[in-house]
Amino acid sequence: MKVGIIGASGYGGLELVRLLHNHREVEHIDLYSSSEEGTQFSSKFPHLSKLYDRPLKQIEEVHLKALDVIFASTPAGVTTEIFPPLIGNGPRLIDLAGDFRLKDPDVYAHWYGKSPPPSGAIAESAYGLTEWNRDSIRRAQLIANPGCYPTATLLSLLPLVKERLIDASQLIIDAKSGVSGAGNTPGRMTHFSETNENLSIYKIHEHQHIPEIEQGISLFSNEKVAVTFTTHLIPMTRGIMITSYAPLKSNVTEQHLIECLKEKYAHSPFIRIVTETAKFCTKQVYGSNFCDIHVKVDPRTNRATIVSVIDNVVKGAAGQAIQNMNVQFGLDETTGLTQVPLFI
Amino acid sequence: MKVGIIGASGYGGLELVRLLHNHREVEHIDLYSSSEEGTQFSSKFPHLSKLYDRPLKQIEEVHLKALDVIFASTPAGVTTEIFPPLIGNGPRLIDLAGDFRLKDPDVYAHWYGKSPPPSGAIAESAYGLTEWNRDSIRRAQLIANPGCYPTATLLSLLPLVKERLIDASQLIIDAKSGVSGAGNTPGRMTHFSETNENLSIYKIHEHQHIPEIEQGISLFSNEKVAVTFTTHLIPMTRGIMITSYAPLKSNVTEQHLIECLKEKYAHSPFIRIVTETAKFCTKQVYGSNFCDIHVKVDPRTNRATIVSVIDNVVKGAAGQAIQNMNVQFGLDETTGLTQVPLFI
Amino acid sequence: MKVGIIGASGYGGLELVRLLHNHREVEHIDLYSSSEEGTQFSSKFPHLSKLYDRPLKQIEEVHLKALDVIFASTPAGVTTEIFPPLIGNGPRLIDLAGDFRLKDPDVYAHWYGKSPPPSGAIAESAYGLTEWNRDSIRRAQLIANPGCYPTATLLSLLPLVKERLIDASQLIIDAKSGVSGAGNTPGRMTHFSETNENLSIYKIHEHQHIPEIEQGISLFSNEKVAVTFTTHLIPMTRGIMITSYAPLKSNVTEQHLIECLKEKYAHSPFIRIVTETAKFCTKQVYGSNFCDIHVKVDPRTNRATIVSVIDNVVKGAAGQAIQNMNVQFGLDETTGLTQVPLFI
Amino acid sequence: MKVGIIGASGYGGLELVRLLHNHREVEHIDLYSSSEEGTQFSSKFPHLSKLYDRPLKQIEEVHLKALDVIFASTPAGVTTEIFPPLIGNGPRLIDLAGDFRLKDPDVYAHWYGKSPPPSGAIAESAYGLTEWNRDSIRRAQLIANPGCYPTATLLSLLPLVKERLIDASQLIIDAKSGVSGAGNTPGRMTHFSETNENLSIYKIHEHQHIPEIEQGISLFSNEKVAVTFTTHLIPMTRGIMITSYAPLKSNVTEQHLIECLKEKYAHSPFIRIVTETAKFCTKQVYGSNFCDIHVKVDPRTNRATIVSVIDNVVKGAAGQAIQNMNVQFGLDETTGLTQVPLFI
Repeated sequence: MKVGIIGASGYGGLELVRLLHNHREVEHIDLYSSSEEGTQFSSKFPHLSKLYDRPLKQIEEVHLKALDVIFASTPAGVTTEIFPPLIGNGPRLIDLAGDFRLKDPDVYAHWYGKSPPPSGAIAESAYGLTEWNRDSIRRAQLIANPGCYPTATLLSLLPLVKERLIDASQLIIDAKSGVSGAGNTPGRMTHFSETNENLSIYKIHEHQHIPEIEQGISLFSNEKVAVTFTTHLIPMTRGIMITSYAPLKSNVTEQHLIECLKEKYAHSPFIRIVTETAKFCTKQVYGSNFCDIHVKVDPRTNRATIVSVIDNVVKGAAGQAIQNMNVQFGLDETTGLTQVPLFI
Repeated sequence: MKVGIIGASGYGGLELVRLLHNHREVEHIDLYSSSEEGTQFSSKFPHLSKLYDRPLKQIEEVHLKALDVIFASTPAGVTTEIFPPLIGNGPRLIDLAGDFRLKDPDVYAHWYGKSPPPSGAIAESAYGLTEWNRDSIRRAQLIANPGCYPTATLLSLLPLVKERLIDASQLIIDAKSGVSGAGNTPGRMTHFSETNENLSIYKIHEHQHIPEIEQGISLFSNEKVAVTFTTHLIPMTRGIMITSYAPLKSNVTEQHLIECLKEKYAHSPFIRIVTETAKFCTKQVYGSNFCDIHVKVDPRTNRATIVSVIDNVVKGAAGQAIQNMNVQFGLDETTGLTQVPLFI
Repeated sequence: MKVGIIGASGYGGLELVRLLHNHREVEHIDLYSSSEEGTQFSSKFPHLSKLYDRPLKQIEEVHLKALDVIFASTPAGVTTEIFPPLIGNGPRLIDLAGDFRLKDPDVYAHWYGKSPPPSGAIAESAYGLTEWNRDSIRRAQLIANPGCYPTATLLSLLPLVKERLIDASQLIIDAKSGVSGAGNTPGRMTHFSETNENLSIYKIHEHQHIPEIEQGISLFSNEKVAVTFTTHLIPMTRGIMITSYAPLKSNVTEQHLIECLKEKYAHSPFIRIVTETAKFCTKQVYGSNFCDIHVKVDPRTNRATIVSVIDNVVKGAAGQAIQNMNVQFGLDETTGLTQVPLFI
Repeated sequence: MKVGIIGASGYGGLELVRLLHNHREVEHIDLYSSSEEGTQFSSKFPHLSKLYDRPLKQIEEVHLKALDVIFASTPAGVTTEIFPPLIGNGPRLIDLAGDFRLKDPDVYAHWYGKSPPPSGAIAESAYGLTEWNRDSIRRAQLIANPGCYPTATLLSLLPLVKERLIDASQLIIDAKSGVSGAGNTPGRMTHFSETNENLSIYKIHEHQHIPEIEQGISLFSNEKVAVTFTTHLIPMTRGIMITSYAPLKSNVTEQHLIECLKEKYAHSPFIRIVTETAKFCTKQVYGSNFCDIHVKVDPRTNRATIVSVIDNVVKGAAGQAIQNMNVQFGLDETTGLTQVPLFI
């Protein structure tokens, strides 16, 4: 397979390079950049010396069409322009940005403050939450790869909401992310001296991943919900933890929740239901495509606390994108994604 | 004033030393340790060279009685033994441990797994949440200084619960703490290589501060509640953030919440109600006795998200203890506590 | 005393505010900014709410002249313009930038790439390495406050070089700094995701503090030297450690080195000679004006390793500036600088 | 190949598991532990759930003999007992501990404070600095895998010393390591609250890697030297940087140094000579088996500063051990070691 990466210099792009480098079906990777065409990739990123001593290429439609699959990891708005002309024309398209995730163009316009892509292109696309949408992903040319927060949130909540074990109308979702989720552009929120040894809350009730989570719950479990969702910035580079709270439905026990999750994900190699409570943490998935889930019922309040962790740049971005590529091309879902987490 | 610190080598003790060193009414500090009597304090802690080149003293009742005030920052169970004999006998007693916080001995025994102190001593003690209990603190010889989590939780929630602006029966409290809260004993949870670049959740629904929070809400707002409370370990040394969620009562707006908080704390120099949302973070109180509070209503769900931050070893421990001493001795509440936060 | 701070929004300025806030001789602080005049200081820095709810002022000569002392913490080049007109006209001037540090204008032009200040102004200024230059500092209107690296380097090496105990012609200086030394402007070198969990070397042999160190050695010990000096960026916010290496002169022992240091600094309250080797670290001076020094002789190679630590924004900037102000105004050198280090 | 890992729970062991998991020639991994036999490996380390849901095995000679290769990552002293009886009896033995590294038993006894292994076993062993000792490694049954500091130090210095381009008699080596080098046993030096936001110096002139470095220089370049070597603890988990200083020999230029390094390592896939100085840092090798080297001459002092970085648990331990296994078994040196560094 010949692969192209648009936005190779961003963190999503760099992680695609890292993971695809050892993917046995990938024979060549083209690196594209609109702003840095000609720059030697390994001069810009010395960690890729000896591996990618080649220049970034200009984005040209004719070259893109010759590829088997194109990943785009770009700011919102870019694939809205680049991808529609390629539909029906060959390469599989996997978009790590938000452009094609929201089916309702008004919702997209409201939360992203940008013009939505053409409705035909949206209709053609499949939402790439792999474990919940394999059939559509297999058939679709264009995949809207999920956001990092929605991935960890939906994977942990969907089985329980779908089976009506928890009351989805009262969902509280407390999200925590490492700083790489903010991307590679330096700014106040990512300035080391003000981020290190500090914990911030940001975009309270206002994160653009809120409608994506609500759409996902509606799409896969047929529940129409409005969630309370808040995001915190953790002084670490990688990792997301989602702590969700919901009342139990009548007669539901912790065991029911665990069994529901285990059953749903019995054939999903990247989902692990962890029942020990000793130390449940983001590092147990660091650098890997795993999503680990833990649930605990509070008998005093009859509420469930549901926790999930992912590596935001792997399962929350590049890893899931490759998992989707594997599904599209009929490969084993784990191809190129067998990295063991770096616990230390 | 002659001051004694029992447990001077712990993090609470070290912070008492740091803050009391510049308290203008304190003329002498005795440092006590049961296990390290005789050790030169500045040999053990080189950051105190030239300042505390003196040995740790043995704990002896006769010496303790000659002091004006004794702070204890010890593991649960120690002051249960040491403090009762000193009641009625002179020195003011300020306990940074949990021993005297819970009024109901059965609740203490259940959550702490230890024998409670004599009920007479508990009855004599005042709960040291300064802003809510100044009169009792002034009169009491023995102060049960609040836990770090309850301090930040109660200060932010009590006004809103007391004025019936939020529905306290559905309180969700998502707590996040720096690692110094775990104290100075090395262990798995505090081992750098497994704590750095990692985010953990621990003691889900099981933290011993839960009954203290519920008792505080009951004591000061007359609401009997069971809260869902979960704690996370943040890869930083100092700082606590509490993110609480509750439905609004009818016809309550964000403005009502802000005004209620501002009014309640109009004469409390350490409480700041922050209305800008740009960056609300733990570092804005770092090294200081401030508690900053921020609220935001989610109009989509009609819930409030209430956030508060403190420095866990200052307002959450040593700082509030000194604030209570100031109240006991009729000093200005801010004496010795005018440190400006270290934002960087 | 009425104090003005030019460049209050930078890290040096913020630290001046933190320390001067509790200085008993300071009755008022004016905050100046050329670029953000009118901005409410505590809106920009919420950690200063309730403390500095006042706007930044425009820099105007007439206002500056009414002050007793002016601190400037600005990029190189600014005080070259602002300070000369104020010489002979009232306020004491303390420059935390590099403009007036180098006596030779050609050297300044070469290492800073900027035009040097008027030679008359340079001649009027005193180099503010307090422990070595108190008389000149007392007399001078304008103080060139030393750089952070030169402060820690010179304090540890000068006594040994001056007494000819080490061979200054072979000095190797390996410098390590926290990230706050890079200031508050976001950029690649300070972007959290690339700085956290990372150790970098930068400006090898090319740091503009090299001529300042060489000039200081020449000025105070009469040795003309060229040093090898290299800087590393440590993933922490505050703190500098200087590890220096030099051959011993004949018949010199570790004990000689220690005694030389102790004698030289017997009356310097901020210098501590630490002889225990258990854990010598930057945190033992965190947030304080101390400079701690440790020496160790390697009997196998007959070389000395000399280590010093400071808090770069205190003794390396704002703290030493205030120490110099104290000297200028005949106050006790420690006034306003009695902060105990935050070891945790 | 059937592989055994003794000391699987340590950080060296965990990293062997991470890397060997994707090594195409390894069909089975046995995990041994003397102290935790029977413990489910993935219960102890949840990051290995679904991957290593199997118990730790007891160390028994008969089972060990059936393996093709045994890695030991144990405290000094353990393989001194376990390995000698296996010599001449089948499995290749790769020791990540220090037991067999020093050829002179007196030197070992002096620096390690332990009894050395039988001299016959030492004589049989090859020092596993792969790039310098491939022939001996291929032939030897027992490999003494180098220490983390010696690996990064020797790889950068050996070519320059061997070619007499720098004066090895005046070598100063300033070493900096992340905390994982201290292993997985909690203690004061690794307690998060005292290690985070802190930089320490330790074991000045006394690290047990000093004789290993001196032996390596002697062995491969025929120079007998005594080096000044000092170690610093950096507040990060992984990574080592070695900054070495030495005078140039006459008429040697920076270009000579670079060419010498490039020529020596022209056929070594894991060594990269980096000439750009923008940002040379540990993260450019994070999680990979690379050793990156950078040199810069200071024309003012005629000294060279030589810098090298490795991931201490990969090239400094488990990665180099696997590289040695590849050499022993005639595989391509990079088999299983093609991980791309995690720059973020």
